[in-house]
Amino acid sequence: MNDLSRLCVHTATTRPLSLDKALDAYAVAGIPGITVWRETLNDHTLEEAARLINASDLTVASLCRGGFFPAPSAVDRQKAIDDNRLAIEQAAAIGAPLVVLVCGAVPGQPLEESRKQIAEGIAACLDDAQAHNVKLAVEPLHPIYAGDRSAINTLAQANALCDALASPFVGVAVDVYHLWWDPDLQSSIQKAGDSGYINAFHISDWLTPTNDLLNDRGLMGEGCIDIRKIRSWVEATGFRGFAEVEIFSTRWWQHNQQDYLEIIKEAYHNHS
Amino acid sequence: MNDLSRLCVHTATTRPLSLDKALDAYAVAGIPGITVWRETLNDHTLEEAARLINASDLTVASLCRGGFFPAPSAVDRQKAIDDNRLAIEQAAAIGAPLVVLVCGAVPGQPLEESRKQIAEGIAACLDDAQAHNVKLAVEPLHPIYAGDRSAINTLAQANALCDALASPFVGVAVDVYHLWWDPDLQSSIQKAGDSGYINAFHISDWLTPTNDLLNDRGLMGEGCIDIRKIRSWVEATGFRGFAEVEIFSTRWWQHNQQDYLEIIKEAYHNHS
Repeated sequence: MNDLSRLCVHTATTRPLSLDKALDAYAVAGIPGITVWRETLNDHTLEEAARLINASDLTVASLCRGGFFPAPSAVDRQKAIDDNRLAIEQAAAIGAPLVVLVCGAVPGQPLEESRKQIAEGIAACLDDAQAHNVKLAVEPLHPIYAGDRSAINTLAQANALCDALASPFVGVAVDVYHLWWDPDLQSSIQKAGDSGYINAFHISDWLTPTNDLLNDRGLMGEGCIDIRKIRSWVEATGFRGFAEVEIFSTRWWQHNQQDYLEIIKEAYHNHS
Repeated sequence: MNDLSRLCVHTATTRPLSLDKALDAYAVAGIPGITVWRETLNDHTLEEAARLINASDLTVASLCRGGFFPAPSAVDRQKAIDDNRLAIEQAAAIGAPLVVLVCGAVPGQPLEESRKQIAEGIAACLDDAQAHNVKLAVEPLHPIYAGDRSAINTLAQANALCDALASPFVGVAVDVYHLWWDPDLQSSIQKAGDSGYINAFHISDWLTPTNDLLNDRGLMGEGCIDIRKIRSWVEATGFRGFAEVEIFSTRWWQHNQQDYLEIIKEAYHNHS
């Protein structure tokens, strides 16, 4: 087994496990990094969650997820901003240096309008990000999600958004699942790296066929993404953060999760 | 009801209808254009199909579809080229001025390799295209299909491919379903128009949620695509061809297809 020092697993990858169980299971498996999904925090008070995480040897890579800024009404947009400010507080409380943003989209609202609202929403959170020393990562989502989950669909777009916001607290999350198809990916990764934007790197695989738009991701090696190549582009920029395993999979959630972590380690070794 | 003179329907939109039934139904509905899917030709000999089409008042916009050029073996790539040459002959036989190309992809084969094979495959068909005076249209497909149906996923890519092939017999098909999410779409359409590449314009709508990756397209107005805006960009380039209704929908295929054509006309009127 190769060096696991850069391996991180998202709690959404092992969705059946509560936070305390996930911390134990990852520790047993020798996995050093964890990205905490907010839904996982619901099983505990925030103080309790922070205590559990601090008591573990795991390093928190990020809190997933903030975002979903666009909305037709100003009231709802403010609610989204408030929720993102809460996410920043939660991140700080559990020692997460980063909040990942799934930026949002509204079915039927023009994408340009959603993009404008996303920029405004993030801008409204920057003081909080700075105050808590928590960075934000714009995660471009696969165009399949442009209808209702994210109007930011390429890394070039995310880079441009970061350029416009011009804050050291805003960068990007590079997720191979969302970006592998992009003919401009290598140059966009280089631009993100040169600009100091790469705050996170997520791995999983694209299955053919994909049977569910949300929860049919593949384990590394099960699909058609050349993860090693994309990782080499990311690391060529100097990025030395975690490779975060983020797999939403109804199929894998049915497995024994401790066994699954061993399978993840093997896949990480062989295909990333 | 507005002017229907630019309305075209794909036989795949009314999949339950055989070619002769489709020709009759479109004529009854007053729809002037038809794009013929090759599977529809299977019900007849090619001569019979040509005779049926000639006897109708319908104008054939294109034959769908050629493509699927990439393959691991040279033998299979040659088979694909031969099949595309056959498609060009079929198009000429039925009076279709255009063959639309779904370019293809091979799960697990690097996209760059598939893109190279696509360019080589199209190049190998150009003499036939010229000999039969049938154009080819590279149709960029939504990135959701990058795994197994097309390694060409943006209009910018399709334009670049046309630039490289540099033949008056190769252009693009602009399909709102595949391209609506692209932040660079307007400029890519303008570039395609300036280069004389726009050979076809396809309309349908993107449903949220989309329940099937292939056969859950929406009728214009059912989803979130601003078809009018995209059409205005296409027509700003001087394009005056058909707006072709291409809807793969298990749901709509269950309707009475003659009634469905009336619904299509209404949707075309109100949302394109």
